[in-house]
Amino acid sequence: MAAVTDGPVLVEPGSDDAKGMYKAARELAKLGKDIVIQLPIESNGLRVARLLSQDQVAVCASGCYSAAQALVAAKANVAYVAPSVGPLDDIGSIGMDLVEQVIRIYDNYGFQTQILVSQLRNPVHVLDAALMGADVATVPPAVFEQLVRHPLTDELLASRKK
Amino acid sequence: MAAVTDGPVLVEPGSDDAKGMYKAARELAKLGKDIVIQLPIESNGLRVARLLSQDQVAVCASGCYSAAQALVAAKANVAYVAPSVGPLDDIGSIGMDLVEQVIRIYDNYGFQTQILVSQLRNPVHVLDAALMGADVATVPPAVFEQLVRHPLTDELLASRKK
Amino acid sequence: MAAVTDGPVLVEPGSDDAKGMYKAARELAKLGKDIVIQLPIESNGLRVARLLSQDQVAVCASGCYSAAQALVAAKANVAYVAPSVGPLDDIGSIGMDLVEQVIRIYDNYGFQTQILVSQLRNPVHVLDAALMGADVATVPPAVFEQLVRHPLTDELLASRKK
Amino acid sequence: MAAVTDGPVLVEPGSDDAKGMYKAARELAKLGKDIVIQLPIESNGLRVARLLSQDQVAVCASGCYSAAQALVAAKANVAYVAPSVGPLDDIGSIGMDLVEQVIRIYDNYGFQTQILVSQLRNPVHVLDAALMGADVATVPPAVFEQLVRHPLTDELLASRKK
Amino acid sequence: MAAVTDGPVLVEPGSDDAKGMYKAARELAKLGKDIVIQLPIESNGLRVARLLSQDQVAVCASGCYSAAQALVAAKANVAYVAPSVGPLDDIGSIGMDLVEQVIRIYDNYGFQTQILVSQLRNPVHVLDAALMGADVATVPPAVFEQLVRHPLTDELLASRKK
Amino acid sequence: MAAVTDGPVLVEPGSDDAKGMYKAARELAKLGKDIVIQLPIESNGLRVARLLSQDQVAVCASGCYSAAQALVAAKANVAYVAPSVGPLDDIGSIGMDLVEQVIRIYDNYGFQTQILVSQLRNPVHVLDAALMGADVATVPPAVFEQLVRHPLTDELLASRKK
Amino acid sequence: MAAVTDGPVLVEPGSDDAKGMYKAARELAKLGKDIVIQLPIESNGLRVARLLSQDQVAVCASGCYSAAQALVAAKANVAYVAPSVGPLDDIGSIGMDLVEQVIRIYDNYGFQTQILVSQLRNPVHVLDAALMGADVATVPPAVFEQLVRHPLTDELLASRKK
Amino acid sequence: MAAVTDGPVLVEPGSDDAKGMYKAARELAKLGKDIVIQLPIESNGLRVARLLSQDQVAVCASGCYSAAQALVAAKANVAYVAPSVGPLDDIGSIGMDLVEQVIRIYDNYGFQTQILVSQLRNPVHVLDAALMGADVATVPPAVFEQLVRHPLTDELLASRKK
Amino acid sequence: MAAVTDGPVLVEPGSDDAKGMYKAARELAKLGKDIVIQLPIESNGLRVARLLSQDQVAVCASGCYSAAQALVAAKANVAYVAPSVGPLDDIGSIGMDLVEQVIRIYDNYGFQTQILVSQLRNPVHVLDAALMGADVATVPPAVFEQLVRHPLTDELLASRKK
Amino acid sequence: MAAVTDGPVLVEPGSDDAKGMYKAARELAKLGKDIVIQLPIESNGLRVARLLSQDQVAVCASGCYSAAQALVAAKANVAYVAPSVGPLDDIGSIGMDLVEQVIRIYDNYGFQTQILVSQLRNPVHVLDAALMGADVATVPPAVFEQLVRHPLTDELLASRKK
Repeated sequence: MAAVTDGPVLVEPGSDDAKGMYKAARELAKLGKDIVIQLPIESNGLRVARLLSQDQVAVCASGCYSAAQALVAAKANVAYVAPSVGPLDDIGSIGMDLVEQVIRIYDNYGFQTQILVSQLRNPVHVLDAALMGADVATVPPAVFEQLVRHPLTDELLASRKK
Repeated sequence: MAAVTDGPVLVEPGSDDAKGMYKAARELAKLGKDIVIQLPIESNGLRVARLLSQDQVAVCASGCYSAAQALVAAKANVAYVAPSVGPLDDIGSIGMDLVEQVIRIYDNYGFQTQILVSQLRNPVHVLDAALMGADVATVPPAVFEQLVRHPLTDELLASRKK
Repeated sequence: MAAVTDGPVLVEPGSDDAKGMYKAARELAKLGKDIVIQLPIESNGLRVARLLSQDQVAVCASGCYSAAQALVAAKANVAYVAPSVGPLDDIGSIGMDLVEQVIRIYDNYGFQTQILVSQLRNPVHVLDAALMGADVATVPPAVFEQLVRHPLTDELLASRKK
Repeated sequence: MAAVTDGPVLVEPGSDDAKGMYKAARELAKLGKDIVIQLPIESNGLRVARLLSQDQVAVCASGCYSAAQALVAAKANVAYVAPSVGPLDDIGSIGMDLVEQVIRIYDNYGFQTQILVSQLRNPVHVLDAALMGADVATVPPAVFEQLVRHPLTDELLASRKK
Repeated sequence: MAAVTDGPVLVEPGSDDAKGMYKAARELAKLGKDIVIQLPIESNGLRVARLLSQDQVAVCASGCYSAAQALVAAKANVAYVAPSVGPLDDIGSIGMDLVEQVIRIYDNYGFQTQILVSQLRNPVHVLDAALMGADVATVPPAVFEQLVRHPLTDELLASRKK
Repeated sequence: MAAVTDGPVLVEPGSDDAKGMYKAARELAKLGKDIVIQLPIESNGLRVARLLSQDQVAVCASGCYSAAQALVAAKANVAYVAPSVGPLDDIGSIGMDLVEQVIRIYDNYGFQTQILVSQLRNPVHVLDAALMGADVATVPPAVFEQLVRHPLTDELLASRKK
Repeated sequence: MAAVTDGPVLVEPGSDDAKGMYKAARELAKLGKDIVIQLPIESNGLRVARLLSQDQVAVCASGCYSAAQALVAAKANVAYVAPSVGPLDDIGSIGMDLVEQVIRIYDNYGFQTQILVSQLRNPVHVLDAALMGADVATVPPAVFEQLVRHPLTDELLASRKK
Repeated sequence: MAAVTDGPVLVEPGSDDAKGMYKAARELAKLGKDIVIQLPIESNGLRVARLLSQDQVAVCASGCYSAAQALVAAKANVAYVAPSVGPLDDIGSIGMDLVEQVIRIYDNYGFQTQILVSQLRNPVHVLDAALMGADVATVPPAVFEQLVRHPLTDELLASRKK
Repeated sequence: MAAVTDGPVLVEPGSDDAKGMYKAARELAKLGKDIVIQLPIESNGLRVARLLSQDQVAVCASGCYSAAQALVAAKANVAYVAPSVGPLDDIGSIGMDLVEQVIRIYDNYGFQTQILVSQLRNPVHVLDAALMGADVATVPPAVFEQLVRHPLTDELLASRKK
Repeated sequence: MAAVTDGPVLVEPGSDDAKGMYKAARELAKLGKDIVIQLPIESNGLRVARLLSQDQVAVCASGCYSAAQALVAAKANVAYVAPSVGPLDDIGSIGMDLVEQVIRIYDNYGFQTQILVSQLRNPVHVLDAALMGADVATVPPAVFEQLVRHPLTDELLASRKK
């Protein structure tokens, strides 16, 4: 995985109409190299995303809950697409299955868009994303601490201290 | 699943030595038909569990993190075994795989012990448990509410109200 | 499949609060043996569904878009649950996968609730439902006509007429 | 397989309208116990098939090129359905796949209609039908002779004669 | 997928005999670089397709309902072949299975002919085509709009507006 | 396996025409309860087999090198069919695959004919036949001795003697 | 598993020739109901095993390292067969694969001989045997203690004590 | 597939002994670049094939009914090997399975010998050969015409003419 | 496997705080080219590991019991990660499954960290590691001797001496 | 397969101690380019093998009955390893499974050692070795003759002679 904890810095342009979004995004993009503009996957968002991508501004398509959305986002040449795992699990749909579909589709077409798996809620989510080979995963600090820990490691450390 | 929300009422006898545990458990068991004595899977706990089961007292073997433990618990004739899903996920081990192993082993031998899947944390856990055919699952109220909800159902209800 | 074209006659009680729903449903149920009360899967709907089922009134839980919902509906003892295939396809989620999950879960627990596959839109939906062994499928007349037809059958009939 | 060479004697009522078909079929059915009325799967044919089946007249639904057609035929309670293997192969569609689908669907619902695999053209067709467990297969005499023969059997017989 | 909405502009030469077809096609091809001559897969159509392909005119072989037809079309060196998904679904044959076969065959031989999946009717068709890696898919506008939409995205957008 | 070493005693009637075969077989059958008439799978042999089977004389259909032959033999109601494993291996065809096909077909139809796997040449043949669940296997004495032996058993016996 | 720790009490008759073995075994068998005579799988051992089994004396065929040996032992009607897992692992052959083969063969023929998995060396061996559904497994005390233990159980117990 | 209809022109040298075969083949090979000498797979034929291949004369090894034969032919460096599909089907052996084995073996060793699938009898044979990626297939004209045709294409053409 | 017996020489810096660990490690690393600093997977250990790796000091991350830990270790650029097989087997978790997960994840991301499979206890562990393609495996001398030995080799050697 | 009949010429140095073996081997190696020294897989043999391999003398490690042995042999850099198929079959262990394991392991590590499959006893062994892609196979002359022969080829040749 390209980066477990420190992915791109995502910022949302605070506007609803396409024109305002585009203008705000261009300003925000000047703030730093790591800045990535976060735009939702809907008509306006995608139109602005396409323009910004042509301007070499990195965009992250968020609010992605289906592989069809991820396909459309990649066709808009965004830098990142962010499938949301947790909220899908919450409605009884297996979030990681979405990630698997997106990886398979992106592999089929050699899309450059990176898959930024988001809203992971436990170490098994991270494990699954790694086994699938997702590009990036954003992990909350609490989960990151869990990744490092295993009770047998604790026992080992304790036994050495004795 | 025999019961999604209202499984047995679990109580722990407040003692550490086998004798005290057994005595406390016999008293607790008199409190009602739904009372199930919760005992951890370790030497003392299992010895008491075996005795109580011979006395027809319902025991739930808790603290179960491996199929080997569940096998030993079933040989002690307990009424329930409670594989803990969430804590295994927390150490990067797939908790539901344990449930699958226990179901397969119990099916092989026709054990009467019921599998009470516990510490489920999201609707996908419940979905998986149901697809595997676990006997009982204890679901926290927040997860139970999530089970019922789907955004397309919300849309349907909203459209009818118009 | 128990019935391709003529499933139960579904009617919705025209009320939003639980009390009104229940009362309207009891009246509607007296209209005929084939009447089935259609109630959405949400808190109020499920509460009423449970009461009606206890009164031996046939209920169909509609607005079902996840297997978790179907599980909860079966626990309320409804006569039918109606997974909606078309609307899931419309959001890029494979509707027939839901039907497969529901069938597997109901088989695991021997639930009596019948699976009434609904909003099928083409003959392949019907084929899939039949291959999975769904209980009932409601097929629009246009699709039913397509089921019967095959161009090789047309050729055969044409050649006989010559 | 219930019968490799001597399946039912199929006869077609020589009429195109439903009334004529029905009348002719009733007459033909009186000719003998083995007589089976062959009717094509289309609106008229199915309507007459349903009536005759109610009269306990054995009907064979012919011109069957899709599992959907076989499903509709079974719902009309015909005695036999005859999936046509060769003509499907001729248009580059795998005919035996149809037989497999029909067997699976009929198994799901316990349909009484027998599957009479027809227009088989070589021993591998018969082998596949037997491996799938089709009820009956009509085999042309030339194919039947091929079934019995194997060059190693010929060698064995020749070596014994020496 | 090379292009979800804007594939080649298909035009049909309005003639039935080979000579007229060829002549009309040559004229049409002069109209623009994106023009693709659409010819049906039958003897005349294929003969003209072969000639036009030798003249570097882009041809799309349409009316393709079997992998055998797609094989023959590729041997005629056409630029595109257009498997028709919807009409196969309509006769109870799984249209996407044809696409899968064509992709596998074209991969085996490294054919240059592009697979233009046509007559897709819902987002699951598009999802399947993308998972298989089809070259191009023509999607009706209504389906394209569905691709972008997901009720959880709607919720997200709504929650942000508040 | 019903019997590893002592299957039925097979005898061949020494005649080539059907009449002579039948007569000789009836005489031979009187010699003892274990006598089984061995007849090759070809037109004459099968005709006589069918007659003898009607007379309750046990027949073994030999010279069986294809599942189609085994199917025809079972339809003649013979007591045994003897697929020949070794000779198929000799021509580069996997003999045990034939046994697997015959078992599957016989299971599909509940045929009473027993499968007597013959011309086995090494312990792996016997292992495979047992894993498939063949009814009877005729094993040459040299192979039978090999079945019992394992070098670790030899070591164990040797170590005990010390 | 019928019994994890307390399987039958195995005793070996201290003699090498068949006669001596048989005589010693008959004497030993009188010592108690749980006594099982352990005999190695080789010609003499099997001959005696067959005789003792006819006398209703329970025999355990030991030194079993191949499924062919287990097959021959079952044909001698012994009460138990004891596949040796550890020693096979020691020569780089997967011991549990032998157990799997024996279970499958015994299932095919409904053999009454019980499979007593022996020389298990770690909890994964026991887990595998339970997942396969072996009848009995002899577990050394050290392994039995490991079965019960899991570091998360230890943590749970420790946290309760605080 | 390198060529569906026009593979190499096969000619047989009219002689039985190796010397005559070789001489006749050398003469025939001078007749044209497309001439391929067809020799049967048996001792003499293979010996001559090896010599001719060293002389750069293209040989097609015919009469190939097992993968072992195809292996030996490739070791003789022939230009083509011609597995015979139809005759294997005729004896109840699946001819296309031979083609699959030969393709897999040739792939393993990078043999230059081309696989010329012969005696195909219907479009499904061609479909299978294409799905497997066979090099060349000789298709009789009647089958070639079937490849192009599909009843839905006929309907489409008919509808356009109206 | 890069090396069965002689992997890197692992040494542990004898300190608990990060500063002391780092300092001791730098000293140890000067002792020789084969020296590899062994550090446990926990916050301090990982922090030091990252620093040392930047200094081109080879580090082996030990105490690895989950794939999540191995993922974090690889992100710290350590030279080796050492999944512990035996201790996982001891708690009824299949140790080799961990190795398989780590290999798959490392392959997905092209991590340079080598997988040093440790605490192998028998030849089947080594066999499994080799079948998975693990980089390095540390095998105790007793197991190494077992790897070489096979009773059939012993027999062969014995027979030659005669 | 690199060579079906004429693999390397194997010679055994006639000595038991390492020194004698090495000396004899060096002398034998001078006899010709095709000479390969055959040494058994045991401590002495492996030590000498390693030395000879460093001297560029081709060694074949024989007496190989487990994949662990083949792994150790490859680490000694021998030119060939010779898994023995027949003797494993004789003890009821599937010899070809060993070949499959060795191929998979050698592929994992890119070992240069060639796999010389030995003691093949019938054409199916050769077929399996070819399907797995083994490097070399030594086939006894009788089996080689069987490879070429097929009864349908015989029929073809006979029919041509008429």
